[in-house]
Amino acid sequence: MGKCHALAWNAVGPTFGDTPAIRLVHLAEVDADLARTRADAFGFEKATGNWRDLLADPEVEVISVTTPNAFHPEMAIAALEAGKHVWCEKPMAPKFEDALQMRDVARASGRIAALGYNYIQNPMIRQIADLLAQGAIGRVTHIRAEMDEDFMADPEEVFYWKHDANSGYGALDDFAVHPLSLITTLFGPLDRVTTDMARPYPDRLTSEGDRRPVETHDIANVLFRMKDGASGVLMANRSAWGRKGRIALQIYGSAGSITYDQERMNEVEVYRAGGDAAEAGYTRLLAGPAHPIYGQFVPAPGHGLGFNDLKVIECCELLNAIHGRPAHLIDFEKGIEIERSVHKMAEAYEAQSWVSVT
Amino acid sequence: MGKCHALAWNAVGPTFGDTPAIRLVHLAEVDADLARTRADAFGFEKATGNWRDLLADPEVEVISVTTPNAFHPEMAIAALEAGKHVWCEKPMAPKFEDALQMRDVARASGRIAALGYNYIQNPMIRQIADLLAQGAIGRVTHIRAEMDEDFMADPEEVFYWKHDANSGYGALDDFAVHPLSLITTLFGPLDRVTTDMARPYPDRLTSEGDRRPVETHDIANVLFRMKDGASGVLMANRSAWGRKGRIALQIYGSAGSITYDQERMNEVEVYRAGGDAAEAGYTRLLAGPAHPIYGQFVPAPGHGLGFNDLKVIECCELLNAIHGRPAHLIDFEKGIEIERSVHKMAEAYEAQSWVSVT
Amino acid sequence: MGKCHALAWNAVGPTFGDTPAIRLVHLAEVDADLARTRADAFGFEKATGNWRDLLADPEVEVISVTTPNAFHPEMAIAALEAGKHVWCEKPMAPKFEDALQMRDVARASGRIAALGYNYIQNPMIRQIADLLAQGAIGRVTHIRAEMDEDFMADPEEVFYWKHDANSGYGALDDFAVHPLSLITTLFGPLDRVTTDMARPYPDRLTSEGDRRPVETHDIANVLFRMKDGASGVLMANRSAWGRKGRIALQIYGSAGSITYDQERMNEVEVYRAGGDAAEAGYTRLLAGPAHPIYGQFVPAPGHGLGFNDLKVIECCELLNAIHGRPAHLIDFEKGIEIERSVHKMAEAYEAQSWVSVT
Amino acid sequence: MGKCHALAWNAVGPTFGDTPAIRLVHLAEVDADLARTRADAFGFEKATGNWRDLLADPEVEVISVTTPNAFHPEMAIAALEAGKHVWCEKPMAPKFEDALQMRDVARASGRIAALGYNYIQNPMIRQIADLLAQGAIGRVTHIRAEMDEDFMADPEEVFYWKHDANSGYGALDDFAVHPLSLITTLFGPLDRVTTDMARPYPDRLTSEGDRRPVETHDIANVLFRMKDGASGVLMANRSAWGRKGRIALQIYGSAGSITYDQERMNEVEVYRAGGDAAEAGYTRLLAGPAHPIYGQFVPAPGHGLGFNDLKVIECCELLNAIHGRPAHLIDFEKGIEIERSVHKMAEAYEAQSWVSVT
Repeated sequence: MGKCHALAWNAVGPTFGDTPAIRLVHLAEVDADLARTRADAFGFEKATGNWRDLLADPEVEVISVTTPNAFHPEMAIAALEAGKHVWCEKPMAPKFEDALQMRDVARASGRIAALGYNYIQNPMIRQIADLLAQGAIGRVTHIRAEMDEDFMADPEEVFYWKHDANSGYGALDDFAVHPLSLITTLFGPLDRVTTDMARPYPDRLTSEGDRRPVETHDIANVLFRMKDGASGVLMANRSAWGRKGRIALQIYGSAGSITYDQERMNEVEVYRAGGDAAEAGYTRLLAGPAHPIYGQFVPAPGHGLGFNDLKVIECCELLNAIHGRPAHLIDFEKGIEIERSVHKMAEAYEAQSWVSVT
Repeated sequence: MGKCHALAWNAVGPTFGDTPAIRLVHLAEVDADLARTRADAFGFEKATGNWRDLLADPEVEVISVTTPNAFHPEMAIAALEAGKHVWCEKPMAPKFEDALQMRDVARASGRIAALGYNYIQNPMIRQIADLLAQGAIGRVTHIRAEMDEDFMADPEEVFYWKHDANSGYGALDDFAVHPLSLITTLFGPLDRVTTDMARPYPDRLTSEGDRRPVETHDIANVLFRMKDGASGVLMANRSAWGRKGRIALQIYGSAGSITYDQERMNEVEVYRAGGDAAEAGYTRLLAGPAHPIYGQFVPAPGHGLGFNDLKVIECCELLNAIHGRPAHLIDFEKGIEIERSVHKMAEAYEAQSWVSVT
Repeated sequence: MGKCHALAWNAVGPTFGDTPAIRLVHLAEVDADLARTRADAFGFEKATGNWRDLLADPEVEVISVTTPNAFHPEMAIAALEAGKHVWCEKPMAPKFEDALQMRDVARASGRIAALGYNYIQNPMIRQIADLLAQGAIGRVTHIRAEMDEDFMADPEEVFYWKHDANSGYGALDDFAVHPLSLITTLFGPLDRVTTDMARPYPDRLTSEGDRRPVETHDIANVLFRMKDGASGVLMANRSAWGRKGRIALQIYGSAGSITYDQERMNEVEVYRAGGDAAEAGYTRLLAGPAHPIYGQFVPAPGHGLGFNDLKVIECCELLNAIHGRPAHLIDFEKGIEIERSVHKMAEAYEAQSWVSVT
Repeated sequence: MGKCHALAWNAVGPTFGDTPAIRLVHLAEVDADLARTRADAFGFEKATGNWRDLLADPEVEVISVTTPNAFHPEMAIAALEAGKHVWCEKPMAPKFEDALQMRDVARASGRIAALGYNYIQNPMIRQIADLLAQGAIGRVTHIRAEMDEDFMADPEEVFYWKHDANSGYGALDDFAVHPLSLITTLFGPLDRVTTDMARPYPDRLTSEGDRRPVETHDIANVLFRMKDGASGVLMANRSAWGRKGRIALQIYGSAGSITYDQERMNEVEVYRAGGDAAEAGYTRLLAGPAHPIYGQFVPAPGHGLGFNDLKVIECCELLNAIHGRPAHLIDFEKGIEIERSVHKMAEAYEAQSWVSVT
C-alpha cells in the first residue's frame, strides 16, 4: 500500500496537470536502510527509520499512513497534531474508541484527514452516482452488495494473525468496509442491521503442527434497512474460492436497475424501465471520456483504467480538499459512519437480532 | 401452466422413447366449450366443464392439477382419493395445514403425488449435483440464492390479487420456493432462518381510482444455516426491474465454487482450487450430451434446451415414479419440507429473530 | 433429425393452437422393425421399411425427409411428384445440378417444398430482422458471421466419410450454410466472394491403422460483398476446440450494431448510436413474449426457448405455407440461392480469386 | 500520447524498483510556452519549442517520439544519429521506404530503437504466449483477429485528414497494425494475404458544406496464411458502432483454444481438450500476480491493470534493452515486418488476389 501511495504521488501531477507541484520529501520505514532503498525507488528525497522524523520535518505538508491498522491511531493523531494533513489507509482503527479519537483530533486540527477508500473513486462508481442523481432508475428500493475474495479459502493454510480475535471480527471489518463505503457514498447511512457470521473452517493447523481454533469469521451476511425503508443485503466472504477482487452491486429502483462488479471495474450495466419491451435490457457501459475523470487518463473510450489509477484519483481529491476545492473523499467524519456500521453489525451478530446503527 | 403440462405429455414419449404409451384422455376447464377447444388443441380425447368428471373416468390414471394454488388441496386430495396419480403445480397450498393434509392423503393413497418444481430437472442442475457428489468443490461452506423478476416492478400497475394478504406472503411463497427447491435438492433441509421482508411500493392505485395499501411483500431476504453449519442467504424480489427469470446460485466449498443463473440455463460455471494459479479460473460448462438427460433432446452439444423441455423431463420422472423406477422428483413429502421452510421464514420475519425450521 | 421432426409434429398443435389437426400417419425407416419401434415412440400410426410406401399412402399429405443428404434429391422429387408437400433437411443435395432439379420439380408440382434451416426461426433472429426493418442500426455497412464447432477438432479421431471428397467441400457446405441462411434471410443474396479453405490435419489414421489424406476442408474463410457494397466475412470451422454450437453474428450499420451468438440463443445485443455518450452501450435483450412467437411457448420473459422449439416454429411455418398463409421459410427457391453461394465460394477457392455469385 | 509517455517515465521507477534512476530532462513542444506548461505538469526540467534542442542536449539519453506519424522518420533518424535511444510511437512511417531507412539508421547507430506497440505488453498477452509455449492448446491451426472502434462510425462527421489518401490506407495502417503486432509476436510472420477494403460512407460533408469523396477505407478484411499453413482472418473496422477499444483474438489449436478481448484486458479464456466432456469448457483467467509482471503493480489478484500500465511495462522493457537485458519489445527490425505486412495487404487489395508477404 505504501508503494501504491508512492505511485499515486508520482502520477497525480502528470495525470491531472492542474495540481500543485508535488515534492516527495521524506519516507519512513521500519529501518533506515529499507527506508533509503524505498525512497530511491519511489523518488523521495529523504529517508528515515523513525517515522516521527516526518512530524518534525517542516518541509512535509501531507503524510501518507500506510502501516498496519493497529498503528493508524497513534500515527494519524501525531501527524494531525503536528499540523500535517493525513492520508490514512482504511479502516481507521481496530477499536471504535480510537477511531472516534482520531475523528476528534482531526476536527480540532483543521487539517485534512482522508481515508483510502479507493473504490469510490472509480469513474464508473461516479457514473452510477450520476445516474442515481438524475433519477435514471427512480427511487432506490433494494440494494445488494457482495465482496468476495479467496485469499483465506484454502483450508490447508496455517493459522495466522487474521485468524486471531485481536485482528478484528474477520470479513466484516477486514473488507466489508469496502462495499460499505460504496453503499454509504451512493445512498447515505444505514439505519438498522441484523447479521450472521460464519467460520467455514473452525480450526487451522499452526506452524507448530497442532490445530488451533479460528477466532475470526471469514463470512459475514447482513440484512439492512436504509432510513427511507429501502432494504438491502451485504455479503462478505474472504474464503470464496474463485473470487479475486469481487465487489458486486445490484441496485434496484422504481424505474430501473444498475449492476456493477469490481472485477470488471470498467463496466456498469443499467436497465431503464419503459419504452418498447422488445428492446428493453441491460445496457453495458464501458468506461470512456464521457464518464467522470476517465479522460484525464486516456482520451479514447474502452481502453480501461486499472486499480492503481483509482489511487491517483484519490490523491487528486486529497489535493482538492487541501486547496479548499470540493472533494470527493471519505474523511474521518464519514469514516466514523462506516466504522460505526461495522461495529453495530458485529453487535447485531452477538445479539442475534436487529440493531439500530444510528 | 396447463398448456405446459399438455406440451410435456405430448413430448415425453417421442423424447424418451422408452416411456409407456401416453393417451391424453380427458381435459377439464371452467366451462365445457373452452374445455373442448383446449382438448382439440392439446390432443385430448374427452373434454368437460366439470373437473370431477376426471375422477370418475376409469380411463384416467394420472391427473395434472394446474389450477390456481387455492384449488390445489381440494383437487389433489380428491384425485388421490379416487385412486389417480397426481401431478400438481407448486406450491401445494396457501395454508400449511392444507399442505399437510395433502401429504397425509398422498401417503395413505399409495399413489404418486408429484409437484411441479421444474427447475430441479435442468440437466445443468443435475450436473451441479454430480459435481457436488464427486466432491469437485469439497465441503460446501456457503450458499447464495437469488430469484428476481420484474413483473411487479412497475409502481404504476394497479392493485391486484397478488397484493392482497390472502394470496400469501408475497415473494417468499410466490417464488422463493423455486430457489428453495434447488437448495433443498442439492443440499438438504435448512436448519434455521431469519428474515426481512419489504414492500418497495407501500400502496397502489386500485381500478376504482383510489390507493390501497399493499399487503404482501415483493422482497424477501433470508439468512439461513444448514444443519452442518454452512451459512447461506436467500433473496427474492419480484419488483426487480431488468430481471426476467433470474434464479442465481453461488455455491462456495472448501475446494472450489459453482455459479448458475437460470436466465442462462444451459450454462454452469465451476472453479476448482489447486493447480497452477496462472491457469485457475471459472470454467463455463455449456449443456451437452455429456450432461444428464440432455442427449434425449439433442445429440450435439451447445444447442440449448428451453424451459418447456424441463417439464418434459419432469413428466418422464413422474412416469418413472409411477412405474416404480428411481425418480428425481419433489413429491408431497419433500414438498412439505419446502413449504415448512417458507412458513418458518415468514414466522422469523414476524418475530424479527432466528427461527428453527425443523 | 427424424426425432426432431417427430417432436415438432407432436408439439406444433398444442403450441400454436390454431393449426389444423395433425395426424402422424406413416413412418419409414431402413427396416420394418426399426420403423415400428420408432412409430410407436413418436406416435405414428403405420410403419414401413420401404419409404416408397409413403408416396402411395393417400392419407399422407406431407413428408419429412430427414435422411442423409445424398438421398434428398431422389426422395424429395418422388414425394413432390406423388403430390405430397415436402419438408426436407438442408442442404438440398451434394450436387448443385440435383438441387436445381429439386427446385424445378417443386415449381412444377405446386406443392410446398420447405428446407430445414431452423436457425432463421429463432424469435431473436426475427427480432434482429425487425430491428433492421425499423432502421434501428441504419444502413448495414459490414457483416461478420462465424460458425464453429469442435466435432472434428480431435486430431486423433479416425478418418471417416466426412473427410472423403465425396461428402462435399467440408465446413463450407457441411455447416457454413447455416450462417449463410441467416445472412441471406436478413440481408438478401451475396454479390461476390473470395475464399480460403484449410485442413488443420492433413491426414488421419484409418480404422485399418494406416494414415489417409483428408480430402475435405474443416476450415473455410470467405470475404464477401453484398449487392449494395456492404462488406462481410464468413468464417466456418468444424475443428474449433471449445465451440459447441456457435453461430455468431456481428452486424454493423450507420446508426448502430447488433451481435448474436447461437450458443446463447435467447439473447441479442444492440447498440444504438446517438444520445448521451455516457449512457451508450450494448443493450442485451433477453427473449420474451415481446419478441416474435416466443409467447406461444412461455407467457413469461426470460424463461428460455431451446433448439427443438425452433423446429416447432418451422413446422408451424410449413403449415402456414400449406394453408396459403404468409410463411417465414426457406423453400427450394431460396435454398437454391444458398447452395449457389456455397458452390461459388468453392469455385473462388479453386480460382484463388473473387467470383460473382449471381 | 506524449502524456502517456510522461506518465510511464514517472511511474516506471516506483513500479519496478530495480530500474536506473530516471530524470525527465527536456521536453519539446510546438511552441516554448506550451512546452514549459507541459514540462511543469509532467515533471521535466527543461522545455523548448524546438525539438532539435533535445538532440544537442548532452543530458538527454533517450527520446520519446510521440508526434503525428508523418514526423516520425525525420525525428527518429535525427535522434538516433545524435546518439540517443529512441522510443517512437507506431507506426514507423506512412511510407515503407522511410520505415526502411529508419531501420537502417537504427542498425547503424547501435542505439535502441523501440516502437510503441503497447498491447503486446499486457500481462495477459504474455500469459497467452506462455500457454502457447507450453503447448496448452497444441499446434495452432487457425487464428482470428478483430480490431474495432467507432470513432469514424458517424456518417455525419465531417471530412478530416484521416479520410484523405495522404493519411494512408485507412483501417489497415491506422490500426490493424495493433492486432498484427499481437499476431506476429505470438505466432511469427505472415506468409501470404488477400484483402478486401471497404468504405462504409463513400463521401462526407466538408467543413465548407459540400461533400467530398472519402479516400481511405474504414474497413479492412484480410485472409492470411502463416508459414506453417495455419489459416487466419484479420478484420479491422474503425466505423464499428459500439466498439470502443476492441482487439479480439481467437486462437484455435489441435488441443484447445484461447480467446481474448482488449476491452476486457484483464481476462483470457482458455479451452483445453481432453478430460471429462461434462467438465470441459472455457476457463476465464483473471489477471493476478501468478501472471507475468502483474505483481509489480498490485500484489493481489483480480484488481485490474489499465491501459496506461501497459506503457509503464513498455518503458521498463525499453530500459531493459538499453541496459542489455533481454527485452520484450517491438524494435525497428520487428516493426519493419509489421509494416511490410500492411503494405502487402494493401497491394493484395489493389491486385484483388493473394500476395506473398515475404
